[in-house]
Amino acid sequence: MIIVMASRKQEDIDHVKSKVEEMGFDAHLIEGVQRTVIAAVGDGRGKERLQSLESLAHVEQVMPILKSYKLAGREMRPEGTVIPIGNTSIGGDTFSVMAGPCAVESREQIVETAKIVKAAGAQILRGGAYKPRTSPYSFQGMEEEGLKLLKEASEVADMPFVTEVMTTESLDLVADYADVLQIGARNMQNYGLLKAVGKKDVPVFLKRGMMATFNEWLMSAEYIMAEGNHNVIMCERGIRTFETETRNTLDLSAVPVLKKLTHLPVVIDPSHGTGHWDYVSPMALAAAACGADGLQIEVHPNPEVAVSDGPQSLKPKVFNQLMDNLRPILKVTGKSL
Amino acid sequence: MIIVMASRKQEDIDHVKSKVEEMGFDAHLIEGVQRTVIAAVGDGRGKERLQSLESLAHVEQVMPILKSYKLAGREMRPEGTVIPIGNTSIGGDTFSVMAGPCAVESREQIVETAKIVKAAGAQILRGGAYKPRTSPYSFQGMEEEGLKLLKEASEVADMPFVTEVMTTESLDLVADYADVLQIGARNMQNYGLLKAVGKKDVPVFLKRGMMATFNEWLMSAEYIMAEGNHNVIMCERGIRTFETETRNTLDLSAVPVLKKLTHLPVVIDPSHGTGHWDYVSPMALAAAACGADGLQIEVHPNPEVAVSDGPQSLKPKVFNQLMDNLRPILKVTGKSL
Amino acid sequence: MIIVMASRKQEDIDHVKSKVEEMGFDAHLIEGVQRTVIAAVGDGRGKERLQSLESLAHVEQVMPILKSYKLAGREMRPEGTVIPIGNTSIGGDTFSVMAGPCAVESREQIVETAKIVKAAGAQILRGGAYKPRTSPYSFQGMEEEGLKLLKEASEVADMPFVTEVMTTESLDLVADYADVLQIGARNMQNYGLLKAVGKKDVPVFLKRGMMATFNEWLMSAEYIMAEGNHNVIMCERGIRTFETETRNTLDLSAVPVLKKLTHLPVVIDPSHGTGHWDYVSPMALAAAACGADGLQIEVHPNPEVAVSDGPQSLKPKVFNQLMDNLRPILKVTGKSL
Amino acid sequence: MIIVMASRKQEDIDHVKSKVEEMGFDAHLIEGVQRTVIAAVGDGRGKERLQSLESLAHVEQVMPILKSYKLAGREMRPEGTVIPIGNTSIGGDTFSVMAGPCAVESREQIVETAKIVKAAGAQILRGGAYKPRTSPYSFQGMEEEGLKLLKEASEVADMPFVTEVMTTESLDLVADYADVLQIGARNMQNYGLLKAVGKKDVPVFLKRGMMATFNEWLMSAEYIMAEGNHNVIMCERGIRTFETETRNTLDLSAVPVLKKLTHLPVVIDPSHGTGHWDYVSPMALAAAACGADGLQIEVHPNPEVAVSDGPQSLKPKVFNQLMDNLRPILKVTGKSL
Repeated sequence: MIIVMASRKQEDIDHVKSKVEEMGFDAHLIEGVQRTVIAAVGDGRGKERLQSLESLAHVEQVMPILKSYKLAGREMRPEGTVIPIGNTSIGGDTFSVMAGPCAVESREQIVETAKIVKAAGAQILRGGAYKPRTSPYSFQGMEEEGLKLLKEASEVADMPFVTEVMTTESLDLVADYADVLQIGARNMQNYGLLKAVGKKDVPVFLKRGMMATFNEWLMSAEYIMAEGNHNVIMCERGIRTFETETRNTLDLSAVPVLKKLTHLPVVIDPSHGTGHWDYVSPMALAAAACGADGLQIEVHPNPEVAVSDGPQSLKPKVFNQLMDNLRPILKVTGKSL
Repeated sequence: MIIVMASRKQEDIDHVKSKVEEMGFDAHLIEGVQRTVIAAVGDGRGKERLQSLESLAHVEQVMPILKSYKLAGREMRPEGTVIPIGNTSIGGDTFSVMAGPCAVESREQIVETAKIVKAAGAQILRGGAYKPRTSPYSFQGMEEEGLKLLKEASEVADMPFVTEVMTTESLDLVADYADVLQIGARNMQNYGLLKAVGKKDVPVFLKRGMMATFNEWLMSAEYIMAEGNHNVIMCERGIRTFETETRNTLDLSAVPVLKKLTHLPVVIDPSHGTGHWDYVSPMALAAAACGADGLQIEVHPNPEVAVSDGPQSLKPKVFNQLMDNLRPILKVTGKSL
Repeated sequence: MIIVMASRKQEDIDHVKSKVEEMGFDAHLIEGVQRTVIAAVGDGRGKERLQSLESLAHVEQVMPILKSYKLAGREMRPEGTVIPIGNTSIGGDTFSVMAGPCAVESREQIVETAKIVKAAGAQILRGGAYKPRTSPYSFQGMEEEGLKLLKEASEVADMPFVTEVMTTESLDLVADYADVLQIGARNMQNYGLLKAVGKKDVPVFLKRGMMATFNEWLMSAEYIMAEGNHNVIMCERGIRTFETETRNTLDLSAVPVLKKLTHLPVVIDPSHGTGHWDYVSPMALAAAACGADGLQIEVHPNPEVAVSDGPQSLKPKVFNQLMDNLRPILKVTGKSL
Repeated sequence: MIIVMASRKQEDIDHVKSKVEEMGFDAHLIEGVQRTVIAAVGDGRGKERLQSLESLAHVEQVMPILKSYKLAGREMRPEGTVIPIGNTSIGGDTFSVMAGPCAVESREQIVETAKIVKAAGAQILRGGAYKPRTSPYSFQGMEEEGLKLLKEASEVADMPFVTEVMTTESLDLVADYADVLQIGARNMQNYGLLKAVGKKDVPVFLKRGMMATFNEWLMSAEYIMAEGNHNVIMCERGIRTFETETRNTLDLSAVPVLKKLTHLPVVIDPSHGTGHWDYVSPMALAAAACGADGLQIEVHPNPEVAVSDGPQSLKPKVFNQLMDNLRPILKVTGKSL
């Protein structure tokens, strides 16, 4: 921690030094031309308590130097993490495409979609059985019945599936069915849920909160990993900005930034990231080009009657074309479907 | 819903009209000079499904006309809601001050603080027993022991208390002790938790999410109210913007906007809203002047050793002065402590 | 500047030290448990060049310690600046109300409004003769004719006036008429214009850009002051966020933050800050309560036919009521109209 | 315009209808189950005046239906615009790379860089002679001397160059030298400057403002085009968000969104968009993959001593490698260098 003094009086400096030392750190003094700075040196534990020194009138600012995540940090596994999922895996040389409808609506819908996306080259099925909706009056998902249909579709199409878990109460049930547990953007800092999935032996697909910094997002991964589950996949799905032409602003810089900061795989969701089907394919290609480990994409056989997220769902024909366009770009990046 | 057509071909217009009618709405056509618009008329139920028509290439945009909350809407109770809490209440002519430390740290700390804030005029004690922390390695709260200490302090100082509940697992326990259940900003869209507190007979203090629009925030209140608990207090605590000099950007326009849209009381938290103790008092006075129903403020006898939120906690002396400055402003707004 | 090393190799440390010294600064080394940090000590000049060391792979981060503004800094004039304007002044114990229409539309409109706002207690007239409009097809203002009408209204009502200057070409003309030169939010970083008004002997009313940090805004004041014109008034008018219920998000924390950082007066514009007339008065009262030096408010005798900003303009009756409500709040803050 | 009534009283409806008709539009009434809506039909001119009806208490909201830009709209030239620039062009099948230093620092630096980027395949040289700097104390550019050096480097390397123009005063001078006039992000709504470059016969490179919506950005293009200069190139360079790990958030969705809304070419600046050299190449590849018409990239022979933007400048070797990686991706999109 770097403590910038507001005052240059000896007694104020001594006061801060003694506080730093009481908390178990060494205090190094640097006298600048205009400011005095105290560097608190010691191991990371408990360092955030130094922040409280900002409450002193003679302290201008307390600036942290170290990242607060450890298990998620790149240094932990410089070669990158590969996560096995059923008959496939995420990370490494694989480019993983997770596709399917926003919500499971019926056996026919989910089985048909699974066959379509599998035939097009997707490796993992997606579909929601529990749906986080802004309104309590909107369709909340088929729940356990939806999980059963996902399982059936997954078996018919021979592909594992990812589905969202929204509560600790339903976690055991969802974990019995799902190959990957999705934590939605709104739950990225639902710490009770993070700790609970951290105790499960199922990979976790962690979506970035709409207003979460990269650092906070990695700290949420750290919550899961600290409980023992190291199979975490990071999914960028757009952040909230002032722009209204797109549903969210898809922050593709998440790919190079996270590749630098963490060893965990990074997947892009251009469906929520843009909110409009005609922006999905260009952003999916961009994600592949900048080095993402995969995509999560909403596909619906009949978007105009979808119970949710119709505007951002791809028709099968458009999805097929996207998959065809992805392949040559992946050749350039050294990954393959 | 207003459906703006991208195409002016008769067959496209007929197609959209028939879709609208299939979903159970009347379709009214308006031929503008440059665009054709279709108004879908009917009662609100299921209207959000019309949004999926945006997936059609011949539809430019689908614009909602109605607010989606009902129970929380001002029309429901134009005179405003007053919520009884122990020996006091929130709403109406009362200006409620909830004060206390960020986290309960010890019996001495919480009992001493309770006495101080009570003596200064605060009606409700605040303190965290379960703490949502960005890092899994930070202090997570004293949990049940903290609840017991809060209860004790609350009895000693003869004032009810508000404390955060983070999980459905701990809800029964927290609800046994607390007079008001706080839902933190990070849990504003934790729908499982919202539904669960909606079934309790304890008032809920609902903080605005860092990236939540007023509409989304009211929809979260609606989740609680739809389960039967109509005693919801809205708390603005700052939204996330690009500005870094303050911890968050305290959006005081929440007060007049919510006063127009909802009958629920509106409380301001200038401690989290600014993140720095020396900005807290001016913003607290501003909140009183624009018509807020109260404040939630962090007070700590010794901020520089606080285990969390030290920089934004007021010392007792500063808090006393704030209370003194509040009174004449409240006289102007017709409220009183 | 604090330079956080990514590498701990001696040669990398030596390389950075030598670069720092080549640029004329002393390099102080601090060996932490996990990171090595180099503090570059010297006077402020040219320090921003150190930032380029971030381009080195063995440097993690370069963090500035000092604020970059000097003339605008609080230390320069701890007692605060008072700026004389015609028969009144801004700053100190005065609470200044600048009121009038968004745009000058006719002699009758501006003269009538001037009389109304003067009678209500406003000290300064506002009105636009040159209007920055998002669309080139919208009304662009009455230009010189508008300036003449402002002058006339100002004389009739015996109050100075503030009006926006948009270009260096029109600066001489506008400065001949106006008592205060307004720089609009969109021009906050139009450095050519800032330098030009910096050479004039007329006070400058500098609006915060929609996306400007406090630091950038103060740097724009510094641009003006560095040319010799120290009479700068800072005006917060709302920043851009994701919220759409208000036109902008009025950041009232600008008041306590700027009061700490600068000696310049701080004025609030709740009309642009909210965009809706019924939110203007509450936010104006809040501005007074948190210590602002004044308000800029749009008043129109007939808002529903205003050529611009009708929705956010106050009718005379509402404005009168606001002025009446302001007085007792100002009594509390020690200021007066 | 769609006018949503707050009131359902006949007299209020009649009042609004008569106002709409007075302004020259037809008023169509739609009686919904919960709201009454009035559609104002007529040609676009003057429609923004209807917005002022929001100032009426019995009007809830006024919602525009039409885009306000015309010349910039896709319908104007569905096949897309190709802009000739010296011996090359922007738009169509060409992928244009503009490369060079942030600022011209010396003859040697700019000539050497020009040769390097030309050899690597860039078609256009970039370099700043007039620099918009946040601080008045930072290097402001070599001005006319810089223009001369750019011209010389441009001739030596046989490539046209783009450089920023900051003021109308220097416009004639800059336009005498430059092949493309750059309008910086901070000047995107400097309407005086936009009108002035609109009268020149030199293509304009219009950067998106840090807080500008797509709509506002297109309106700024419209300002230029309305003056007669239709050769406008749109450049996305990152918007401002809460994320601090990157300098800005590069909004690549600008590419598909603008491709839908406008016929103007779209270029991406990943240097300012990320602020760190190691994120530049991945984002440049992503830009190519999603269909951008080109890139603007900062290249410096010696970034760690650059007078500005060192951290985001590519070394020649990294730039060469980027150009090599771009080619196969462009093959996929049907464009070429």
